[in-house]
Amino acid sequence: MEGVTLGQLAARFGVLLRGDPDARVTGVATLENARRGSLTFLANSRYRRQLENTAATAVVLEPADLERCPVAALVDANPYAAYARIAAFLHPEPAVTAGVHASAVVDGRARIAASAEVGPLAVIAAGAEVGERAVIGAGCVLGEGVQIGADTRLAAQVTCYDRVRVGERCVIHSGVVLGADGFGIARDVDGWVKVPQLGGLRIGNDVEIGANTTIDRGAIDDTVIEDDVRLDNQVQIGHNVRIGAHTAIAGCVGISGSTTIGSNCMIGGAVGIAGHLEIADNVAILGLTLVSRSLNEPGTYSSSLPAAEVSQWRRTVARLRHLDELFDRVRRLEHGAGGPERERT
Amino acid sequence: MEGVTLGQLAARFGVLLRGDPDARVTGVATLENARRGSLTFLANSRYRRQLENTAATAVVLEPADLERCPVAALVDANPYAAYARIAAFLHPEPAVTAGVHASAVVDGRARIAASAEVGPLAVIAAGAEVGERAVIGAGCVLGEGVQIGADTRLAAQVTCYDRVRVGERCVIHSGVVLGADGFGIARDVDGWVKVPQLGGLRIGNDVEIGANTTIDRGAIDDTVIEDDVRLDNQVQIGHNVRIGAHTAIAGCVGISGSTTIGSNCMIGGAVGIAGHLEIADNVAILGLTLVSRSLNEPGTYSSSLPAAEVSQWRRTVARLRHLDELFDRVRRLEHGAGGPERERT
Amino acid sequence: MEGVTLGQLAARFGVLLRGDPDARVTGVATLENARRGSLTFLANSRYRRQLENTAATAVVLEPADLERCPVAALVDANPYAAYARIAAFLHPEPAVTAGVHASAVVDGRARIAASAEVGPLAVIAAGAEVGERAVIGAGCVLGEGVQIGADTRLAAQVTCYDRVRVGERCVIHSGVVLGADGFGIARDVDGWVKVPQLGGLRIGNDVEIGANTTIDRGAIDDTVIEDDVRLDNQVQIGHNVRIGAHTAIAGCVGISGSTTIGSNCMIGGAVGIAGHLEIADNVAILGLTLVSRSLNEPGTYSSSLPAAEVSQWRRTVARLRHLDELFDRVRRLEHGAGGPERERT
Repeated sequence: MEGVTLGQLAARFGVLLRGDPDARVTGVATLENARRGSLTFLANSRYRRQLENTAATAVVLEPADLERCPVAALVDANPYAAYARIAAFLHPEPAVTAGVHASAVVDGRARIAASAEVGPLAVIAAGAEVGERAVIGAGCVLGEGVQIGADTRLAAQVTCYDRVRVGERCVIHSGVVLGADGFGIARDVDGWVKVPQLGGLRIGNDVEIGANTTIDRGAIDDTVIEDDVRLDNQVQIGHNVRIGAHTAIAGCVGISGSTTIGSNCMIGGAVGIAGHLEIADNVAILGLTLVSRSLNEPGTYSSSLPAAEVSQWRRTVARLRHLDELFDRVRRLEHGAGGPERERT
Repeated sequence: MEGVTLGQLAARFGVLLRGDPDARVTGVATLENARRGSLTFLANSRYRRQLENTAATAVVLEPADLERCPVAALVDANPYAAYARIAAFLHPEPAVTAGVHASAVVDGRARIAASAEVGPLAVIAAGAEVGERAVIGAGCVLGEGVQIGADTRLAAQVTCYDRVRVGERCVIHSGVVLGADGFGIARDVDGWVKVPQLGGLRIGNDVEIGANTTIDRGAIDDTVIEDDVRLDNQVQIGHNVRIGAHTAIAGCVGISGSTTIGSNCMIGGAVGIAGHLEIADNVAILGLTLVSRSLNEPGTYSSSLPAAEVSQWRRTVARLRHLDELFDRVRRLEHGAGGPERERT
Repeated sequence: MEGVTLGQLAARFGVLLRGDPDARVTGVATLENARRGSLTFLANSRYRRQLENTAATAVVLEPADLERCPVAALVDANPYAAYARIAAFLHPEPAVTAGVHASAVVDGRARIAASAEVGPLAVIAAGAEVGERAVIGAGCVLGEGVQIGADTRLAAQVTCYDRVRVGERCVIHSGVVLGADGFGIARDVDGWVKVPQLGGLRIGNDVEIGANTTIDRGAIDDTVIEDDVRLDNQVQIGHNVRIGAHTAIAGCVGISGSTTIGSNCMIGGAVGIAGHLEIADNVAILGLTLVSRSLNEPGTYSSSLPAAEVSQWRRTVARLRHLDELFDRVRRLEHGAGGPERERT
């Protein structure tokens, strides 16, 4: 059995070990499917009942769960983050294979670091720069003057329009489109006039961008994604948006143009945020919420309605249409007018 | 006139024919635009009024509509399915052109069936397997160890990350991204830590996946799409999700991580389903609904509100903000306190 | 200093000049960041307070704002459209580089205008036609018989399925998928039957389509996007939809199959429109609204709820579940039954 000992992990990651320091783990597994040699973790109380039956060799968990753990444990106040680091150590990213694939089309005026990897059929235009140990996946297209920072990985089929700048250690997933024109149109008497989208797009360090997400370039100034922002799949970010550091945004969120999102925000799935708003730091927004005004105070916000059985829901919706009248009826009752003017319901 | 006779169609597809068995049809058309030689169908009562004026040669319809049909009819209890089969017979898919296009970049360690077609500028990595008569469209990228089953067709520009497995007879549309990393991030004191996404993605047989849909790989175990699941465009499916057989999901739906959807479910457009939930078999969810709790019983669910004229709607929304107070006011009235403490409206 | 004089701009664009006709501008900037040589504009009252401190050389604005403007002004009743035209003049699109890149894979039976540009690694199938001065970006895939009109620009990585037709002067952004199969499935006893999607997709002139937007081909007849339609990113348009001229649709909107949208409509972000509906001309729909019935009258519609602080919102949602009962309780009060049958709240 290969792998690494629990003692080594405890020392390397600064976590407390309960159990045999010479026991070895070779990979990760879920609590439910773990076997001998597996490392697993408990970070969501939903899965606590699986702890006592786990067949793992060791579990990363928080102190409060230690007494229920039937096997060795790596104990940390933040077991999910500790697990993440250990899992990345046990299952490292594939190594970068330095060099440009023969089938890639790289303009002679692009600058590709010698340690970078450019995959098959990638296209890199004049003036683009790819940093040390960066990976440009198969079929990616980098426009003129695009900058990709060191250690950043673009999966296959990422598109960067001209002059997009991506920082270091970012991960950009397939189908992502960075720097397309914002939705700028001006109404004229005989139709729409396109407003040229002349700004850029700057993405900080340690940013992850999920598959098929789109981030538009600015109309005049740049769209800006700050350091350590985490975007899930199919997020849409309009022109001139600024997203503060460490903000995390779940899938299918849409953020309209010129809105500023603070740092350390958490935005749930399918949230829609209107344009030209300010969202403060440390705001959390629950899934499927519409934000149509600025949120100036930290806190948690929602406007979503949970699913109900349809006939019951339709009754609620029908009543909702008469809510305004109901307020009037109650007011009339409060003023002593017992009977209704006319039957309403 | 070429084509096929109604008698042949009736025999081949096991439907009842009313009319001349030697009449011929050459292709399909809508009820409204059908001409001599057209086969059309009636499966949605919305279009019933168009039946009596159709110029089609024959109509596929259910027995109840037969008496209103002015032309020949192919009668079946399920006319839409019967139409689908006949249309596929009249308009077959283009034949597979076996072979690998000279411009494709196929690793020597990939195994491509001799009868499969690999289009121009596709990229296929080491260890990938492409089954008999499968089609890999132009510009597709298949990562290491990807498996594509027999008779499956990938349209142009599909991306499969490493180790994604797709079954037989599937149709995957352009822009689909299969097996990207799930949105796994752990909060630590100084920012986010990426949680390695080490699981796979398994897609069953007879699955169709619409354009620009994304399905993430599992964090540890696999994300699983069972047989005969049908996904429309721009659906987002998070890591560790399982979707049961025969479930159909309309466009723009988002399903968060670790949720299990039963079989034979119908999920309407733009529905959002939170993570770590269980949705029973035979659940239907209407469009734009938020599902934030498990749905353990079959049935139809909704939480969407239908559009209203905006000034009227704003009045409802304003009242809604005072709904809690209204309950209190009614309770006070019920207890005999007629007049309001203070005027509220 | 190069650039163009204000006098030249006033003459060319038919706007009124207040200020020195020999002053020169070299490019555009925001009111806030403008410097000497910048042209800027004021078209949104939100930014009016920035006008008096602007360091721009000139501002495009409407007559009412003229007196507050501390610098030269180009005055027009529609300053945003005037700005758009002037900005396009100051910052023209890159010139078309006629010719087919050596790495593109173009079928010998495709017809590419001599003045058109085909980028690296594009794939163009038999029978496709690319018009004069059209641009096909890197990595685009045009299926058989696709027609791209004169002066239309496809950014990198656009996919057009067979027989899609795009008009003149369109702009199609990266990741767009045109003409994929509509979501046509027929339920049968043992699962789903795919309904062949045999129609086409026709896109008019002067249409702009945002990144990762998808528009499906028709089931039998064509899906149709009329002239001067403007679509933002990640819009999903189902089969057989028709969208009328000059309609603008913001990001993340989903339109289900067989719905007809009128001309000059404005559809906000993340709106969902059900299938088989008719939306009249000149309808505006606010963001995150669900449209589940036809809208036959021009006007503005909404069904979205604005974000509230979560504990307050949960109270409203809890009350909403009892709304139906509340109506009954009020009716009982109106009929003189003061006390509740049983305590409810």
